[in-house]
Amino acid sequence: MTHTEKALVVLSGGQDSTTCLYWALQRFGAGNVEAVTFDYGQRHRIELDCAREIAARAGVYQTVLPIDTFAAIGGNALTDDSIEPEEGVRPDHDNTLPNTFVPGRNLVFLTFAAALAYTRGIRHLVTGVAQTDYSGYPDCRENTLKSLEVAIRLGMESRLEIHAPLMYLSKAETVYLARDCGALEALALSHTCYNGEQPPCGHCASCLLRAKGFAEAGLADPLVERFNGQ
Amino acid sequence: MTHTEKALVVLSGGQDSTTCLYWALQRFGAGNVEAVTFDYGQRHRIELDCAREIAARAGVYQTVLPIDTFAAIGGNALTDDSIEPEEGVRPDHDNTLPNTFVPGRNLVFLTFAAALAYTRGIRHLVTGVAQTDYSGYPDCRENTLKSLEVAIRLGMESRLEIHAPLMYLSKAETVYLARDCGALEALALSHTCYNGEQPPCGHCASCLLRAKGFAEAGLADPLVERFNGQ
Repeated sequence: MTHTEKALVVLSGGQDSTTCLYWALQRFGAGNVEAVTFDYGQRHRIELDCAREIAARAGVYQTVLPIDTFAAIGGNALTDDSIEPEEGVRPDHDNTLPNTFVPGRNLVFLTFAAALAYTRGIRHLVTGVAQTDYSGYPDCRENTLKSLEVAIRLGMESRLEIHAPLMYLSKAETVYLARDCGALEALALSHTCYNGEQPPCGHCASCLLRAKGFAEAGLADPLVERFNGQ
Repeated sequence: MTHTEKALVVLSGGQDSTTCLYWALQRFGAGNVEAVTFDYGQRHRIELDCAREIAARAGVYQTVLPIDTFAAIGGNALTDDSIEPEEGVRPDHDNTLPNTFVPGRNLVFLTFAAALAYTRGIRHLVTGVAQTDYSGYPDCRENTLKSLEVAIRLGMESRLEIHAPLMYLSKAETVYLARDCGALEALALSHTCYNGEQPPCGHCASCLLRAKGFAEAGLADPLVERFNGQ
């Protein structure tokens, strides 16, 4: 980078995006990083609280953008209270999409984030999506991101770069990255549980994946410690 | 097409999308066409009324989807009342973007339309964007649409096709197409004026382009006739 460049991090309040926020702070420098959080009618409002606390703790300017469109399209578990989310890790042979799938959710998040970045003169977008444990969400894969990057560059006449530093990391490697870029303590404020419980329920797909990552990394989860210690 | 396929038309209530609605009816057959209209905080609510009337006249099921995000991003003339839209046709040497540009607006429209189409089992998306008279909107160009189509196909694991039948037509050719697919009378209900006036103001960029097209085609504009005749 020839001069100071700025980055916008898509911050959901979860483990992965929190890790990415600190990755961006390390790479682009404090004062060059902003966050955007989407209020899209998610089932658990606690995610928004977590994202706000995490941005504040990191000293990062945060924009919260509403998206009322997904709820209007309807028919999915994350925004429709009439549909229960699936529990547990899905078996490998099940290649249907989980009912928490909002078609095109990440496409929309990244396009709105790019629009916000455009208006703020920011060229780098950082997202915590990962192909490794992508739970069947096809819009978390690198091919999707790469083609969307091209579409956004053409459609906005910008030189936008989408960074997905966790793309090919295992959950254990993501935990190591969090440790190495100083994100570990902030993870005590992050949210993961699909059931929206605090302390986390421990048995939904998200909780199991998170616990597995910390176990394989041989480190304690600061979020679990936070509640055990009380 | 081996069996009956369905199409979803992005219907803004303007001349081009109205023409596309009738193009789709001719190609996919009545009963196989739906419309989606976006309520994104546009300056002129009359567009929404026009779209509703046009869909009703065509006997087409219409979904109106809200998008509150653009207004939250702010800073553009179409959704921000504090900014006046530019008047007249922009000179050729001016390669800046007009201040009516909402970054990524069409990317978002098409991605949400694709999400709606996905939930309704529709594979074809029809949009009225045109490269010929694109007024500096880079997300109306074919390259943008093609790359977005790839991103959506990968991101939704779908076989979505985006059709832009007006892409390389001049405004006069679009008028001929409207005549040939039976859309001409419906154009009396359509809206074009950037200033939101009815009858149209006649001097904004959109009114001038529309008048030029009908003049070159040697046909009367049913919208103008509607008000002249009264």
